[in-house]
Amino acid sequence: MPVYRLVMAYDGSGFRGFARQPGIRTVQGELESALERVLDRNVPTTGAGRTDAGVHARGQVVSFTLSEEADLERLKRSLTGLLSPEISVIGLYPAPTDFDARFSASWRRYRYQILNREANDPLQRATVWHVPELLDEEAMSREAEALLGEHDFAAFCRRVEGASMVRRVDEASWSRQGDLLRFDIKASAFCHQMVRSLVGFLVEVGKGKRPPGDVGRVLAGRDRSRAGQLAPPHGLILWEVGYDD
Amino acid sequence: MPVYRLVMAYDGSGFRGFARQPGIRTVQGELESALERVLDRNVPTTGAGRTDAGVHARGQVVSFTLSEEADLERLKRSLTGLLSPEISVIGLYPAPTDFDARFSASWRRYRYQILNREANDPLQRATVWHVPELLDEEAMSREAEALLGEHDFAAFCRRVEGASMVRRVDEASWSRQGDLLRFDIKASAFCHQMVRSLVGFLVEVGKGKRPPGDVGRVLAGRDRSRAGQLAPPHGLILWEVGYDD
Repeated sequence: MPVYRLVMAYDGSGFRGFARQPGIRTVQGELESALERVLDRNVPTTGAGRTDAGVHARGQVVSFTLSEEADLERLKRSLTGLLSPEISVIGLYPAPTDFDARFSASWRRYRYQILNREANDPLQRATVWHVPELLDEEAMSREAEALLGEHDFAAFCRRVEGASMVRRVDEASWSRQGDLLRFDIKASAFCHQMVRSLVGFLVEVGKGKRPPGDVGRVLAGRDRSRAGQLAPPHGLILWEVGYDD
Repeated sequence: MPVYRLVMAYDGSGFRGFARQPGIRTVQGELESALERVLDRNVPTTGAGRTDAGVHARGQVVSFTLSEEADLERLKRSLTGLLSPEISVIGLYPAPTDFDARFSASWRRYRYQILNREANDPLQRATVWHVPELLDEEAMSREAEALLGEHDFAAFCRRVEGASMVRRVDEASWSRQGDLLRFDIKASAFCHQMVRSLVGFLVEVGKGKRPPGDVGRVLAGRDRSRAGQLAPPHGLILWEVGYDD
């Protein structure tokens, strides 16, 4: 049976996260309702990243299987017409029959955006965390290097009983464009709340509240209680998902 | 009596424009209500640009006079606390006693943003006009050159009885950053609906619907009926206002 890969962007502000939940407005719920309206049958979908409430996406990937070949241009147009303006279908493509958006993914990249100036910007406020105190991005960049490679991220993840928190981080860097500080992190996969927890910690570094080397020490200690505050969800964007094929 | 210059940014989506109107939600109305709450008296303000309903600002300038010196840091914090997150106070400064945000301004710069790709972007949708057809930005840039210098812009402005439509345009250029097309235009002043009318016209150029030289011809003809459609307000941002001092 034909399998499809759908790439989508969304403004997560009005959703209780990506994952479908009965009676609650979620991105996957909206997508599956639209698919059901167009195809007149229930179409279960799988997403590459289960983004939390308020988190956005620029390149979320979703897979689903149909009983017969679809006219993809037409299906894309129909979905675009049915979905709210908060969700956009970027692309819809045929996929190999064994393709699964979640399990076939070889990496995910997230971006976290901080507006680092005194006044907030009303035009960007839905997609940035406003931090008025000037942050030391060089210290934040230096500490972020400790994240590279394979580590047990238990200190920076919400605990899930019996699940491994070992992840491989390939990139973790801060860059500044004017008042905007951006954290780009690419990993094999992410455990729950990992990016927001790391950003919350690194912002404490940027405020001078953590001594040099603290990221490495807290990482090695695997103690969640030492990781500090979570950064808010609305600065986080699921940027891109990579597949080997 | 002391005069002040306030620089503000706003998301115009939820406002019926800048200018105060009784019983209607406008940016100036919100600002004056906040000033009245803080200072316990009515404070009339003057804005540099009377942006239309739905138009945004990054650097709107407002002037007002108080009966005595104000603690500017405190006033700024109080206003920030009272104003909705759609409005942000960027700066608040003492000004010369003859300063008037509107009449002292020597130039204004507007930016118009077009997302030029097939799918809309939910994260930018509030501040871009989504035009799916690929636009020929080189043709748009060539035609925009005809706007430079002093002209009677009657063809591109909403008529106001007895008012001159002569304006001096110092810059008018398109640039592309990925899928985003930006039109930056700087002029001594703008007549009503001028930027949206020019952008609507130039997008027709970019779609190949206007012959080369048409901007110059329509400008010289001064006939409003030949200017075509207005671009929507939500792609337009009052970017900066300049003063000689």
